[in-house]
Amino acid sequence: MRFKPNYAPGPTEVRENVRLARTKRTNNTDFDREFVHYYHEVCQKMGQIMGTKNDVLLLAGEGILALEAACASLTEPGDRVLVLDNGIYGEGFKDFVSIYGGEPVVLSFDHHKGIPVEEVREYLKMDHDFKYATFVHCDTPTSVLNAATELSPLLKEYGILTVVDSVAGMVGEPIAVDQNQIDICCGGTQKAISAPVGLAIVSISEDAKKAMDNRKTPITSFYANLQIFKGYAEKEYLPYTMPASDVEALDVALDNILEEGQEAVYKRHDKIASAVRKSVQAYGLTLFLESERSNTVTAIVIPEEIGALRLQEHISETYNLLIATSLAQYADVILRIGHMGENAFVDKVVFVLTIIDNGLRDLGFKGNGNLAQLFLDAYKEK
Amino acid sequence: MRFKPNYAPGPTEVRENVRLARTKRTNNTDFDREFVHYYHEVCQKMGQIMGTKNDVLLLAGEGILALEAACASLTEPGDRVLVLDNGIYGEGFKDFVSIYGGEPVVLSFDHHKGIPVEEVREYLKMDHDFKYATFVHCDTPTSVLNAATELSPLLKEYGILTVVDSVAGMVGEPIAVDQNQIDICCGGTQKAISAPVGLAIVSISEDAKKAMDNRKTPITSFYANLQIFKGYAEKEYLPYTMPASDVEALDVALDNILEEGQEAVYKRHDKIASAVRKSVQAYGLTLFLESERSNTVTAIVIPEEIGALRLQEHISETYNLLIATSLAQYADVILRIGHMGENAFVDKVVFVLTIIDNGLRDLGFKGNGNLAQLFLDAYKEK
Amino acid sequence: MRFKPNYAPGPTEVRENVRLARTKRTNNTDFDREFVHYYHEVCQKMGQIMGTKNDVLLLAGEGILALEAACASLTEPGDRVLVLDNGIYGEGFKDFVSIYGGEPVVLSFDHHKGIPVEEVREYLKMDHDFKYATFVHCDTPTSVLNAATELSPLLKEYGILTVVDSVAGMVGEPIAVDQNQIDICCGGTQKAISAPVGLAIVSISEDAKKAMDNRKTPITSFYANLQIFKGYAEKEYLPYTMPASDVEALDVALDNILEEGQEAVYKRHDKIASAVRKSVQAYGLTLFLESERSNTVTAIVIPEEIGALRLQEHISETYNLLIATSLAQYADVILRIGHMGENAFVDKVVFVLTIIDNGLRDLGFKGNGNLAQLFLDAYKEK
Amino acid sequence: MRFKPNYAPGPTEVRENVRLARTKRTNNTDFDREFVHYYHEVCQKMGQIMGTKNDVLLLAGEGILALEAACASLTEPGDRVLVLDNGIYGEGFKDFVSIYGGEPVVLSFDHHKGIPVEEVREYLKMDHDFKYATFVHCDTPTSVLNAATELSPLLKEYGILTVVDSVAGMVGEPIAVDQNQIDICCGGTQKAISAPVGLAIVSISEDAKKAMDNRKTPITSFYANLQIFKGYAEKEYLPYTMPASDVEALDVALDNILEEGQEAVYKRHDKIASAVRKSVQAYGLTLFLESERSNTVTAIVIPEEIGALRLQEHISETYNLLIATSLAQYADVILRIGHMGENAFVDKVVFVLTIIDNGLRDLGFKGNGNLAQLFLDAYKEK
Repeated sequence: MRFKPNYAPGPTEVRENVRLARTKRTNNTDFDREFVHYYHEVCQKMGQIMGTKNDVLLLAGEGILALEAACASLTEPGDRVLVLDNGIYGEGFKDFVSIYGGEPVVLSFDHHKGIPVEEVREYLKMDHDFKYATFVHCDTPTSVLNAATELSPLLKEYGILTVVDSVAGMVGEPIAVDQNQIDICCGGTQKAISAPVGLAIVSISEDAKKAMDNRKTPITSFYANLQIFKGYAEKEYLPYTMPASDVEALDVALDNILEEGQEAVYKRHDKIASAVRKSVQAYGLTLFLESERSNTVTAIVIPEEIGALRLQEHISETYNLLIATSLAQYADVILRIGHMGENAFVDKVVFVLTIIDNGLRDLGFKGNGNLAQLFLDAYKEK
Repeated sequence: MRFKPNYAPGPTEVRENVRLARTKRTNNTDFDREFVHYYHEVCQKMGQIMGTKNDVLLLAGEGILALEAACASLTEPGDRVLVLDNGIYGEGFKDFVSIYGGEPVVLSFDHHKGIPVEEVREYLKMDHDFKYATFVHCDTPTSVLNAATELSPLLKEYGILTVVDSVAGMVGEPIAVDQNQIDICCGGTQKAISAPVGLAIVSISEDAKKAMDNRKTPITSFYANLQIFKGYAEKEYLPYTMPASDVEALDVALDNILEEGQEAVYKRHDKIASAVRKSVQAYGLTLFLESERSNTVTAIVIPEEIGALRLQEHISETYNLLIATSLAQYADVILRIGHMGENAFVDKVVFVLTIIDNGLRDLGFKGNGNLAQLFLDAYKEK
Repeated sequence: MRFKPNYAPGPTEVRENVRLARTKRTNNTDFDREFVHYYHEVCQKMGQIMGTKNDVLLLAGEGILALEAACASLTEPGDRVLVLDNGIYGEGFKDFVSIYGGEPVVLSFDHHKGIPVEEVREYLKMDHDFKYATFVHCDTPTSVLNAATELSPLLKEYGILTVVDSVAGMVGEPIAVDQNQIDICCGGTQKAISAPVGLAIVSISEDAKKAMDNRKTPITSFYANLQIFKGYAEKEYLPYTMPASDVEALDVALDNILEEGQEAVYKRHDKIASAVRKSVQAYGLTLFLESERSNTVTAIVIPEEIGALRLQEHISETYNLLIATSLAQYADVILRIGHMGENAFVDKVVFVLTIIDNGLRDLGFKGNGNLAQLFLDAYKEK
Repeated sequence: MRFKPNYAPGPTEVRENVRLARTKRTNNTDFDREFVHYYHEVCQKMGQIMGTKNDVLLLAGEGILALEAACASLTEPGDRVLVLDNGIYGEGFKDFVSIYGGEPVVLSFDHHKGIPVEEVREYLKMDHDFKYATFVHCDTPTSVLNAATELSPLLKEYGILTVVDSVAGMVGEPIAVDQNQIDICCGGTQKAISAPVGLAIVSISEDAKKAMDNRKTPITSFYANLQIFKGYAEKEYLPYTMPASDVEALDVALDNILEEGQEAVYKRHDKIASAVRKSVQAYGLTLFLESERSNTVTAIVIPEEIGALRLQEHISETYNLLIATSLAQYADVILRIGHMGENAFVDKVVFVLTIIDNGLRDLGFKGNGNLAQLFLDAYKEK
């Protein structure tokens, strides 16, 4: 397959040193105890970046496995689970809860802004008998950013565990797991971490471990059962054959982040995202969100007479470039620009904005000026 | 981590062109419909090598996910499942059956030889009310090879579906899925295929699909649910983000196999395995198996006064080489030499035998002659 | 060192498959006769692309070694050599002639256009007693393209051998060695071929071989002596250890060219170069050349009050981008955009033009519109 | 081309991290001043490993370019040069001297041992009017090691500059350029350094620089002219386009050496070489040399009735393995085992000795025991 440049909100570009780490010969992960220790170190490095001293696990699978593993390991038949929903992935959690016999209680909010903490607070006053609650840090289809800072501590007040999907948030936006008292924080390697698809990430708090230990029924899964890793480091034995080179690649990707500095990485995302938002508006387009916009992705409303899907197809055919629209009801409404991880660099954004500008004009849209230049002007200002 | 040569029965060495394929920039698997077609082609190529026109899926996970997905997708609460057991992994299937609410009926046989087809035939005459049966093609801890050729058709006579674990068999030993009427054949990339860990393989027959479609209860899993892939090619949409570079690496590994020719690959395994077995016996050691020895791995009994674990540790410390013992009750009894895929080449085997010979002699064993030379003599003869 | 994007007229970007070919383990080039044949095949493939059935050699060195080897191997003390000069490298040939004892006769022309064939014709009527003549196909410091089509045949009429430096021309512009009767055509791997620096290329005609065979004095060099390769293929022995992986990388780069098709590659260069030139002029800048502009590089005059060197430094500091000025008397006058080989793609050019536009405006230049957009408009038109 | 394992005395195996460094995208070496400084640092690191504070240059070419550049840059017409010859490359220096107009005086010694320092001392008493002298540190065709420690200081007593070819010596055997007062020490990347072919190495003493500065005639070369690099670091400009990725690969290879420790590397070579020599003799074969055997390569006399070339061909055909015989008069007499750099590891040597043992026995030789085992016994003893 011919390579096509990619500006979707993940999987992102993977830096050369990360890709090269994946090509190396690897040791046998089944018989080499040294590998188990190495795995453990990379888990801890991941934890450092997530801001947690909790156990962190790397599961051999795509990011969604982290979400399922959290729900599979916590949910027992009949458990009530609070599903906070202000976006497509937010609502999706209810399915994982149901599969494992839980009773999801879905609390839905406007998709055009972050989950309103006060409304949640009010709701909890009336109804707080939940084993755990779920919400999404950055819900990519609409690019909304939810306040983990406030939601998790609030839920914790009622003894409700929190499962947070930060797959498309972490590294691009601060998550601070321990500070925010998140019990299970889920991530994937292919978003702002900019490592290849292949590992799902979970951090597990002591409270979450206790909840699993105190289950009355066994966990209905092996692959999504977080308990199978229990004591692996002491036993020097992992529950299945680990993809060694994915672990090594992640290790290098994490080093890239630490070398740049986490604060610098956040600033880079912020500077790019702010300039993208500013330029898009100055150009004459509308952002989907009213507020709480994530720095990892920008959702732009495409005028109905053009249509996001038609724009996507036109750009793919004319400029051989893959841009992302959205999902479900937003598929033809929203155009998304992913600017997370390795994609959050000026040269990448300049090019995609140039093409979007040309694509829109080809289809009859009259923008105010040159979109890439508007971006650069805003970027230089900041 | 420093690289250590590895002669375990998987993960095997990965050829340079496969490793290099993993380092390439990849397209976005979520938005690029072309990728879905590419994935489909690689699945079909995999099927060609497995000898099947059935649907083949590549799941983003380790080989064990294939086994779990087969059981999760087929088993409904109360289903009776026949677990044919003549080795450690053979017996292990009962756990997957139980997790998903099935009732495993374990039929156990001597671990020193293949599953006796006639005994199974006799048993089935009395009791054959099973939704499906499970067995392992090559059970690596003891290196036994079971006759898929006879077992699957026999079970089919009674309308019993078969789930076969050929993770450590396929490509090193013929599996011929369609000819043997195997309903779900499970594989992994890291054994005789010699691609990196990362994808689990399943082929699914029409009968198996029907059994899933006709379930009365939903499948208690997302990640291990084979139904989520239903119609993906037509919809041009995969159920989760696929590890693109693992698919590309597998593609190259499959091309390597097809280029050498499948028959030639089988012959290479046979020639190496025969010479290993002959030399080990001529040297004065005993093979664990009486018969039905797989060409992918050889299990050697280590005299009690030496002990397999002590030999392993001595060789690791003195020669910086990782050799594999076995699992569970055989951990200190059996030394295993993996000679599958890229490890089934003369130079690799000469070296590991030289070291085993020296290791054994260091610990007081008196072999008849030089083990590597005995191997080369047997190899040249054949 | 941190990677900096590069838009200079060579070394160009190297495609991923070429870079990966360089990483592979290689065979021993001294003892493996098969390698000699492989080397020979790659030489012939190189010849095919240069349009010649003459012997082609790959020398282990940078492109300049090809020029020196041509002069070293042809020149005997006292030989008169005609040096056609309309640019910096054109004039430079006189030094190679002098080093090896020849008498260079330099015929200089206006640097703002191609060598005027008629003037050369007139000159030759008066003075044509030359062993060989030299000229440059594309003289990169000013980006001029000289008419190999007419010059070589004209010189041949007088029995004058031609040495043509097509290092920065071949593959981006047709060279057609046999059709143009070029005796020694010189190339390098790092320009429009887009392989890494490492091999110098020469094609040698029968007449050139005769001239070397008939020398009265030995060649004053080993490394720049083309005769040391004489009969290497028959002897299955190369005169020194060849950089095997450079040969393998070149092989892949040549396959890339053949796969795209040479005509398609020329068209791609033409389309990009035309649009660059058009946009630069529409923007309000002046091209250095009046005519005979090469499609591999564009030389732009930077207004004196800004200065090419200051612009280069400003862009390097502000945008971390390396752009090329020129050499010698043109160092502060000319800005060059290399658009050859892998750099002759829309996305690369859009980005560099965006930055040049911003850099110029930062320094007070008022362009007419947006340079990248002017380029895209011209590009889409064509 | 299919990869063939290689046990020749260079080019040696290249470690994975060095090969991967070669695949990286590189910066523009012509316009990036930072690259010039990086090049300079790698040159200094090379000097550190050679034991010198002299200027060190990396030339874009094969190792032989270093020898030619030394002779080209020092020799003026009529200069008398002392060529110390006790091997094929030792004698070869006379050609480089002659090409550049010097008068080589060849002092020849027995090829079966090192250059006898006392005989040289006696000779110099009678005749010492030489601009410079040449000798080879390790002359690979016979594997002899010459005493740079004594020869260079002795020649220096008479004001004679020394040019030493340590291409196949350095890193495997100590060279200590400054301590031994070597004026120009030549190396290549593809021997014990175990980087790919591509760079020639020279260190240049103050005396050598003075000799070049004081020439009355210009140097008859550009590519082999060491003076073109004069002041490059200050000018931030290299005389031709450098192969950036070869420099980066060498950098990693040098780091590998420094990480292991130079003394440890010497010890590793010594331990391997001693065990090879001991086992070969115990097996019943004869070493070519009486004494002064280099630790980088072992020359073994193959009985006339078998013949080294026939053994080489037999092993190539039967075992797909490339072993090296020697050159010129020794081509059919000597079998060479290269054990330098990455090839100086136990597993590599065990395999090649196993095959040589089998090859010899196939052709009727009766060795005393198993060659690989004799090697391992000697190796473990030491």
